[in-house]
Amino acid sequence: MAKPIYVLNGPNLNLLGSREPEIYGAETLDDIRARCERRAAALGFEIVFRQSNHEGELVDWVQEAREKASALVINAGGYGHTSVALHDALKTLTQPIVDCHLSNPAAREDFRHVSFVAPVAKGTVSGFGAWSYELAVEAAARMAGATA
Amino acid sequence: MAKPIYVLNGPNLNLLGSREPEIYGAETLDDIRARCERRAAALGFEIVFRQSNHEGELVDWVQEAREKASALVINAGGYGHTSVALHDALKTLTQPIVDCHLSNPAAREDFRHVSFVAPVAKGTVSGFGAWSYELAVEAAARMAGATA
Amino acid sequence: MAKPIYVLNGPNLNLLGSREPEIYGAETLDDIRARCERRAAALGFEIVFRQSNHEGELVDWVQEAREKASALVINAGGYGHTSVALHDALKTLTQPIVDCHLSNPAAREDFRHVSFVAPVAKGTVSGFGAWSYELAVEAAARMAGATA
Amino acid sequence: MAKPIYVLNGPNLNLLGSREPEIYGAETLDDIRARCERRAAALGFEIVFRQSNHEGELVDWVQEAREKASALVINAGGYGHTSVALHDALKTLTQPIVDCHLSNPAAREDFRHVSFVAPVAKGTVSGFGAWSYELAVEAAARMAGATA
Amino acid sequence: MAKPIYVLNGPNLNLLGSREPEIYGAETLDDIRARCERRAAALGFEIVFRQSNHEGELVDWVQEAREKASALVINAGGYGHTSVALHDALKTLTQPIVDCHLSNPAAREDFRHVSFVAPVAKGTVSGFGAWSYELAVEAAARMAGATA
Amino acid sequence: MAKPIYVLNGPNLNLLGSREPEIYGAETLDDIRARCERRAAALGFEIVFRQSNHEGELVDWVQEAREKASALVINAGGYGHTSVALHDALKTLTQPIVDCHLSNPAAREDFRHVSFVAPVAKGTVSGFGAWSYELAVEAAARMAGATA
Amino acid sequence: MAKPIYVLNGPNLNLLGSREPEIYGAETLDDIRARCERRAAALGFEIVFRQSNHEGELVDWVQEAREKASALVINAGGYGHTSVALHDALKTLTQPIVDCHLSNPAAREDFRHVSFVAPVAKGTVSGFGAWSYELAVEAAARMAGATA
Amino acid sequence: MAKPIYVLNGPNLNLLGSREPEIYGAETLDDIRARCERRAAALGFEIVFRQSNHEGELVDWVQEAREKASALVINAGGYGHTSVALHDALKTLTQPIVDCHLSNPAAREDFRHVSFVAPVAKGTVSGFGAWSYELAVEAAARMAGATA
Amino acid sequence: MAKPIYVLNGPNLNLLGSREPEIYGAETLDDIRARCERRAAALGFEIVFRQSNHEGELVDWVQEAREKASALVINAGGYGHTSVALHDALKTLTQPIVDCHLSNPAAREDFRHVSFVAPVAKGTVSGFGAWSYELAVEAAARMAGATA
Amino acid sequence: MAKPIYVLNGPNLNLLGSREPEIYGAETLDDIRARCERRAAALGFEIVFRQSNHEGELVDWVQEAREKASALVINAGGYGHTSVALHDALKTLTQPIVDCHLSNPAAREDFRHVSFVAPVAKGTVSGFGAWSYELAVEAAARMAGATA
Amino acid sequence: MAKPIYVLNGPNLNLLGSREPEIYGAETLDDIRARCERRAAALGFEIVFRQSNHEGELVDWVQEAREKASALVINAGGYGHTSVALHDALKTLTQPIVDCHLSNPAAREDFRHVSFVAPVAKGTVSGFGAWSYELAVEAAARMAGATA
Amino acid sequence: MAKPIYVLNGPNLNLLGSREPEIYGAETLDDIRARCERRAAALGFEIVFRQSNHEGELVDWVQEAREKASALVINAGGYGHTSVALHDALKTLTQPIVDCHLSNPAAREDFRHVSFVAPVAKGTVSGFGAWSYELAVEAAARMAGATA
Repeated sequence: MAKPIYVLNGPNLNLLGSREPEIYGAETLDDIRARCERRAAALGFEIVFRQSNHEGELVDWVQEAREKASALVINAGGYGHTSVALHDALKTLTQPIVDCHLSNPAAREDFRHVSFVAPVAKGTVSGFGAWSYELAVEAAARMAGATA
Repeated sequence: MAKPIYVLNGPNLNLLGSREPEIYGAETLDDIRARCERRAAALGFEIVFRQSNHEGELVDWVQEAREKASALVINAGGYGHTSVALHDALKTLTQPIVDCHLSNPAAREDFRHVSFVAPVAKGTVSGFGAWSYELAVEAAARMAGATA
Repeated sequence: MAKPIYVLNGPNLNLLGSREPEIYGAETLDDIRARCERRAAALGFEIVFRQSNHEGELVDWVQEAREKASALVINAGGYGHTSVALHDALKTLTQPIVDCHLSNPAAREDFRHVSFVAPVAKGTVSGFGAWSYELAVEAAARMAGATA
Repeated sequence: MAKPIYVLNGPNLNLLGSREPEIYGAETLDDIRARCERRAAALGFEIVFRQSNHEGELVDWVQEAREKASALVINAGGYGHTSVALHDALKTLTQPIVDCHLSNPAAREDFRHVSFVAPVAKGTVSGFGAWSYELAVEAAARMAGATA
Repeated sequence: MAKPIYVLNGPNLNLLGSREPEIYGAETLDDIRARCERRAAALGFEIVFRQSNHEGELVDWVQEAREKASALVINAGGYGHTSVALHDALKTLTQPIVDCHLSNPAAREDFRHVSFVAPVAKGTVSGFGAWSYELAVEAAARMAGATA
Repeated sequence: MAKPIYVLNGPNLNLLGSREPEIYGAETLDDIRARCERRAAALGFEIVFRQSNHEGELVDWVQEAREKASALVINAGGYGHTSVALHDALKTLTQPIVDCHLSNPAAREDFRHVSFVAPVAKGTVSGFGAWSYELAVEAAARMAGATA
Repeated sequence: MAKPIYVLNGPNLNLLGSREPEIYGAETLDDIRARCERRAAALGFEIVFRQSNHEGELVDWVQEAREKASALVINAGGYGHTSVALHDALKTLTQPIVDCHLSNPAAREDFRHVSFVAPVAKGTVSGFGAWSYELAVEAAARMAGATA
Repeated sequence: MAKPIYVLNGPNLNLLGSREPEIYGAETLDDIRARCERRAAALGFEIVFRQSNHEGELVDWVQEAREKASALVINAGGYGHTSVALHDALKTLTQPIVDCHLSNPAAREDFRHVSFVAPVAKGTVSGFGAWSYELAVEAAARMAGATA
Repeated sequence: MAKPIYVLNGPNLNLLGSREPEIYGAETLDDIRARCERRAAALGFEIVFRQSNHEGELVDWVQEAREKASALVINAGGYGHTSVALHDALKTLTQPIVDCHLSNPAAREDFRHVSFVAPVAKGTVSGFGAWSYELAVEAAARMAGATA
Repeated sequence: MAKPIYVLNGPNLNLLGSREPEIYGAETLDDIRARCERRAAALGFEIVFRQSNHEGELVDWVQEAREKASALVINAGGYGHTSVALHDALKTLTQPIVDCHLSNPAAREDFRHVSFVAPVAKGTVSGFGAWSYELAVEAAARMAGATA
Repeated sequence: MAKPIYVLNGPNLNLLGSREPEIYGAETLDDIRARCERRAAALGFEIVFRQSNHEGELVDWVQEAREKASALVINAGGYGHTSVALHDALKTLTQPIVDCHLSNPAAREDFRHVSFVAPVAKGTVSGFGAWSYELAVEAAARMAGATA
Repeated sequence: MAKPIYVLNGPNLNLLGSREPEIYGAETLDDIRARCERRAAALGFEIVFRQSNHEGELVDWVQEAREKASALVINAGGYGHTSVALHDALKTLTQPIVDCHLSNPAAREDFRHVSFVAPVAKGTVSGFGAWSYELAVEAAARMAGATA
């Protein structure tokens, strides 16, 4: 069977549902995990879904994905705008990477217009709340060869 | 029945299939139109699909969409990086707007990192070739309330 | 009799009255045309009043004004912030040019602080809604020698 | 009766008529005061007209205008490009403010492209020499509700 | 009884007393904890006082403070100049936040003039060595309603 | 007896209580003077409290403080962001200087992120409304050796 | 026989001979067409010579040249400094492209120092008035293999 | 007899002799006045020597010099780096202006590398302490035609 | 006996040998450890060799080195370009610090031209693959007084 | 007879034919000299052709050209991007100057987009390899009045 | 007897009298040498006066001055804006250095506002044509202790 | 036998031992030559060691090294921060190049953070005084294949 799609979530995404719902929506991270699993299943993939507030842990997981994942969806949260370490880790993957955001960084503060994830990703899905994850998972699956 | 989703394409997208295929892929714009129609149909929408090399014509069509569209997907091509006129037209829409790109601008030249479309869009899908359009159409449909 | 004053309007100004009325006011472009005609008549001038969403068409009209106008009032909309083509066309006029805006660009986004029209205009009137046009027409007439 | 329109003039405007007449014109500040009074009278307003080379005195007068003026026209001269103090004082007014210039700053040195007055003004009239004042006074009167 | 005031300390503050004493003073972090407790007690509050060299751990603690703190004092050390993750975590608090520094960043290197904490804090106390903490704790207590 | 602490206030602070109360609070400058006097008295100091809209007058007072003050608290208002003259005057003091703000400049416009006062001050207290002054006075007193 | 050399002219070049002759010279665009034809003929090529004020039309013609031209000479006028659309169209050609200017952009305003044409051209000829075209045509012919 | 040479001194120069003597030297402003008078007398000129901490007063004096001075030496202190008002006043003089500094701004902070005086002066003398004034007075006298 | 030389490795260096071998070479981190040990032994030193993907852990180890190391070699990987926390920790060492890189940052992306390690290091060795470590260890040993 | 056309070549052009032939072509500098002589002869001019790696020598030769040349073609190599000395020397010529490049600087590194030669030249020919020289010589001859 | 004052002149100053006389004046470099000798003699010094178009030669002469000069006056011409080599050589002198210019760089192009000489000089004299040299020589002599 | 390693030294390095010894150390350039020879000999190489204050001479020597050297070590001194000519010359070498500095440019002025040598070098050794040369020679030898 195909290796799973890794869906990694960065700092503060554990607060989803309570943090600035007018920007990030009312669904929790568990709701989103369920959405990802459903969409992935329909395309023949399983999901590994994790969240951490620690940059180093995200780097560890990206490294783990080098061996164990078919594709990687990452919402790096605040680290996406600052982390060369994450950038370097992502760059070592040969699998497709999808940069994913609940909100639309282009419509927010200037410092959110810089991304160290996007240039090493295959592409980006952002701005559609929980739907961003579903579409990102489909993008990852398609890039990984899903034909369902 | 719901109003259609407008899918507007900017300059040089008529060349799709022959222009820099290593960046933009081998499918033609007609292939993409067919994909958009299929994905939209599955979600209960029709597609109005157009292409122009003229900034003013794109502005005209965006204005037309104010009355006639459920949602708007736009791949503004080169005008997306320079057109305040298009930005202003898009800003007058109350319908969801999806910014769509075949390639990943973040991985290309600096002048492609500036977007006058993204800040007035609901969100962005970029980097997945023809799949970007399918996902963008789904995003547009979802934001417009599709429940299929 | 004196040649008319050209009043040229750029992209999206055809939407006036419906587009962001809190910024641009509730009067339509036809209402503004009527104001311009009244103010001009009182100063001994007729008005040629046009709108286009096409940069090239605005360039054409500016070129036409070289022969046929006493003065030129231009609200270039989004093209005012980006168009070297328009800048170059305006620079060929020897008649007075008035840069006109409904809203106050200095109080809006940074990209509206750049103008390719203002440096080649005689002066600017901005921020007073429909009144900007009236005052701009008077400015144009005065610079063209109106003594009424 | 309506409160007067304040017309405040910043540094070096007392030299009008002798300072760089090719840029600023040959009329003196007294000539301009007379123009302002005539135009204001026609619209039902009186004028309070002052000039100072002292930034602090301009701040004092702007504060005074909070209680005593229907509207404020200000040609802040050199302080317009540098004074946060003046900016802050103007921001406390609820009356309409008109930013006024004899010459066209957009056609001059780069440091004149920065304005601390314009962003807190209702609008700007610039570039028409003494006529700038007349039009600015009308703009102020219109914004203050003149219907004459 | 009121919830405690959280006082969080970022990287290298555990070295206090030995690290560049001419900049940071000779008191240890324990001395400062004692000062904070005394000042807080006088205003009716207890203190939760912690230090970490790990960005992710600081993010965790800020998240914990959302439920458990009356107010938050944070000296984010080096992370204050670089951490969007911390910025995002702090933004989710509705309690008052006080940005606190032993030294005066404005008198040091350029990269210390950027702060991701200050814009989401209620205010800042910096430059007074150990006294900065005492005053920051009082500020936090006052903002949280202390009336002692 | 110890020399007094000078508390100097720059432009527009005389409007306190009426100017943008959502930013600056509802207390008047006289209320703040009383707070400063109380807090200073408890620490064994008297207060010299002044306000001016004139940059030169503030420079004069800072120079006066060289001989007559134990410490200096300054809320330079708009001049804090622009005045090299004030910067140079402050730099001649050997007494502790406290930079004080009612609001939090880091959360406001970019031009308020530049300070010519902070780099020559011992430290800063900002963002706590009238409490900023009390804490600044205590900071000044502590830096001047208060042991109460 | 060899395909012709396309010579495309952007906005305002139709005014040649009357527009700022001290910069652009006194010859008309027809004079220049004749020069181009003569020089091309001597090298065994025909010329397709066009002018438009419309960015989109220039994009159309560049696309047409992909099939029908041996080489392309383009004086994009104002669009050369701003048009990503034109840049993208030019980039799809495999034929040699020559960037051509009557005047010397390096000796003019800063905004003319940016070119979206030059980086995708084979080379540039600028500053020699009508002679620039002759030399550009020869350059195009040489790059296309002329051996005359 | 020739009109005098005006020597104007800006903010904080009244502190000369006590302010940062390692930068500005130990002589007082009176010592410098005496030097200026001696050097001027030898070249056939008298001196008008003044100091003010007030920008507006310096503007007033520069305006006075338009009628009454043969030449102007100005050490604008902090205002030299920020004052457009002073720049505009100086620009109205037809007499030679000499920009004078005790210390060498090029060897100090970045904000002292900007000068609004230098571009409208005939030239600059800086860095030689009190000798800067003597040489500046000679420069002014020479430019004003002194032949002694 | 002398204290050991600490050799600290930042994020992704654990992947050495498999990550972008055309940039980083084919040796593993263990191979490099062996090289370091050999070169150090020849100069009379032992090596403490560690790697972490966690910024905080690197900060901890740098702090540990304050007591336990003769010198420090650090290849901070991605954190070297972003970490003020690491910069501050390194600054507290009095032992020599050597900044070490496998590749040559000056020949790579712009964001790798910024270093928060280099300015607080004694010096840098970069670009020589595994040899960089050997030379860095010798540099560290020499700066720590090795005479072998 | 007419004075010769000077063709000056800067640093590293002596390596032509062996240095990066994919950028600079395979012809040697002697081949190019021959081309220049032929093209010049056809237009009635002789050539003085030189190369130096020394900035000062190039300055000397430009000065010599003031007396002895009809026109000057210069490929300043690396000095073209950095040399104010060369710029100043070129500015003293009244003869036409042609800036010449083998490759197209606009398509190369950013530091090659700055030119100190272009702004003082009549025009530029770049990007056509050895043909650039021929066309530059013709441009020089035409500007110097060749009618052949 | 005292060592001589070195007066070094950079590129293109040998053209003095013929090069842009409206900027640089009509005197030749020999005239200026004579002025320097006269002024120096009156103060008890001899002059060593040289000119070169070669940066390296200027560096050589500055090095020579370390042993043989009482003071150094340098008009580095174009190299003053670009030469770190010269900067470094000048920095090795303990004698006073005077930066000297015929014209006023602050009133010319932006690239002349950068100086690598000024920050390592004692001071600057600029803008007074040949008189700049006389005053610079006096400044050098005074700084070297002349009491005549 | 292997070709020698060239060690080239730029401007002011001839002063070594006397110039700013606190930055550059007390050894002379001859001492360093001896070190280089010893280290090279141990690795089987000879040294060609030169110094020049002339940029052009350094370019000449780099060109010579294309034929005659196994590797090149260059301490370009001030020219390393400004010389495109040197950059271009170095780029023509296929042998390994080592960028070498006595001091650590990252810890010095901003203009020393720019290098035109580093991006075309294999790597850099900086900050270890005379030891930098030894390590650079070893690096050069290793890159050239030394196995001793």
